[in-house]
Amino acid sequence: MSELRKDPVLGRWVIVQTDDSLSPQDYEKENRVFRQQAICPFCPEREDRTPPEIDSVRYDGSHANSPGWITRVVPNRFPALEAEGDIDRKGIGLYDISKGVGAHEVVVETPDHDKDFPDFSDKEMYEVINKYCSRSIDLARDKRFRYVMIFKNYGASAGASLEHAHSQIIALPMIPKYVLQSLEGAKQYYQDNGRCVYCDIIKQEVEDKERIVTENNDFICFASYTSRFPFETWIMPKKHQSSFCQMSDGNKHSLGKFLKEVLQRNKACLSDPSYNFFIHTAPITNSFPEGYHWHIEIIPKLTNMAGFEWGTGFYIVPTAPCLAARYLREAKI
Amino acid sequence: MSELRKDPVLGRWVIVQTDDSLSPQDYEKENRVFRQQAICPFCPEREDRTPPEIDSVRYDGSHANSPGWITRVVPNRFPALEAEGDIDRKGIGLYDISKGVGAHEVVVETPDHDKDFPDFSDKEMYEVINKYCSRSIDLARDKRFRYVMIFKNYGASAGASLEHAHSQIIALPMIPKYVLQSLEGAKQYYQDNGRCVYCDIIKQEVEDKERIVTENNDFICFASYTSRFPFETWIMPKKHQSSFCQMSDGNKHSLGKFLKEVLQRNKACLSDPSYNFFIHTAPITNSFPEGYHWHIEIIPKLTNMAGFEWGTGFYIVPTAPCLAARYLREAKI
Repeated sequence: MSELRKDPVLGRWVIVQTDDSLSPQDYEKENRVFRQQAICPFCPEREDRTPPEIDSVRYDGSHANSPGWITRVVPNRFPALEAEGDIDRKGIGLYDISKGVGAHEVVVETPDHDKDFPDFSDKEMYEVINKYCSRSIDLARDKRFRYVMIFKNYGASAGASLEHAHSQIIALPMIPKYVLQSLEGAKQYYQDNGRCVYCDIIKQEVEDKERIVTENNDFICFASYTSRFPFETWIMPKKHQSSFCQMSDGNKHSLGKFLKEVLQRNKACLSDPSYNFFIHTAPITNSFPEGYHWHIEIIPKLTNMAGFEWGTGFYIVPTAPCLAARYLREAKI
Repeated sequence: MSELRKDPVLGRWVIVQTDDSLSPQDYEKENRVFRQQAICPFCPEREDRTPPEIDSVRYDGSHANSPGWITRVVPNRFPALEAEGDIDRKGIGLYDISKGVGAHEVVVETPDHDKDFPDFSDKEMYEVINKYCSRSIDLARDKRFRYVMIFKNYGASAGASLEHAHSQIIALPMIPKYVLQSLEGAKQYYQDNGRCVYCDIIKQEVEDKERIVTENNDFICFASYTSRFPFETWIMPKKHQSSFCQMSDGNKHSLGKFLKEVLQRNKACLSDPSYNFFIHTAPITNSFPEGYHWHIEIIPKLTNMAGFEWGTGFYIVPTAPCLAARYLREAKI
């Protein structure tokens, strides 16, 4: 039997297979590709293969665009959007168009080609999180931009074209549709109830217990009741906070450790799956801080989107979230 | 350079790579999987491997659930939704849930394991289109349902679990989010302009010419200016019509031939890609026939969704639609 569940923020329905849920073993295992270190442009000594660095964390005495870095931020060599120029918005008949202006940066998370988040030290995790924040704050100063999106693609089937651990930051001249929809949903809920919908979601998850994967003092990770994908999990700060960039230094340390643990659980439970994560945070100019609550959504790549999903926006979830959470909780890390 | 384009119905933005667009050869070619005819449950003589048929087109003298059929409609053996029971909608805290009630049928499009739409006779195409319509009309009589979604997954990477040519029909107890959004967008446009937005899109495409793939008396196929995916194409009836089921018999013949041609062009141009198509048509109870215009969206599976797309709802389109249309127009079929 299956169950239809409606997301309280987005109004999106999902079809959850509550009976005969698939276990981690039921998903096809991915062949991790050969590690192409020999030609990797993100490895040390190859700093000239990327555009000059924007920022970095370095050992004392090392110089920009040379080895000795711990975390490195560079412009994307093949940017989705161009950094220079004006937006130049206009209409062509029915269509609105604008120049593809934006920023597209890459955070190279480690000099070590063979490491990724689950293998990082707590300090390395902190440096990445800290760079996410400082780059976001810097990009927000550009008057052309309205939203900064931070995301990571791990594994070829999740869209990663390079295997060396990296994440991406894109600054956009408009608020993306999905963020707008979640802002509007959250605003509506706040107007109706006088409370943040995400704070209420956390409260309900804590009461229900069964979908919680792990938690620490500052953060909670759970398999949302209305997940779109099997083993999708969300990380949220327990205390209301609208923007990712508002985190204290202590929170950044805490998030680094926490994110590492969640990804270790994913890796152990699902045989090192490809995955995407992205951070949903308030837009640069946020007139409504009391109603939005930043969070990270982590989506392991276990299923393919098909005609039904593309046509409807419904998602079929073959593993019930409470079961996914149990598998992730019980994973040996 | 890239361009940001906004969909006039959905308000969705896409990032189109207008310079350095990828050509068909630039996309990774798929290995079509081995044809597993030996265990195929959709081949003739194996009619007992599916649930009893709901409908079929048959040669004279043949009997239900035995060979002699041309097109066969059966319930899905592993349905996403269950046919029996009441919807039983209720709230659990923040969440709305209902039983997963709906219909999930499979149209087996041919008895021949080695054929698919591009190889079909015009009559075979007609029979499939006709079954889409007759099954939709029949399912619409069930008072529990509000929407009938017809779609096809071709190839494993587009989500097809069986290779024998088939499409699927799902009847849903609610209008899916994407359909609702396009209905609302179309309604808004109609209120503002007194015209159907899709009729206006067709008009603009006809004037611009460059994105048209092919057309006949009744239908047009074009690569939409705001496609989400490279080589995505839409088929629309030239005359305003809100529901797919309103087609005349002549139109069904015409659409069958036309859809075959479009899929032949896709196959020739893109080396037999996996693809999805779905039909967007008006909901069962449609109070607004003048503003909606049914259409088919065809999405070849050439790229992977990644963190940016999941997080934003923005899509990065590496082949400009006008170029995709030219490649498809020039494909040798």
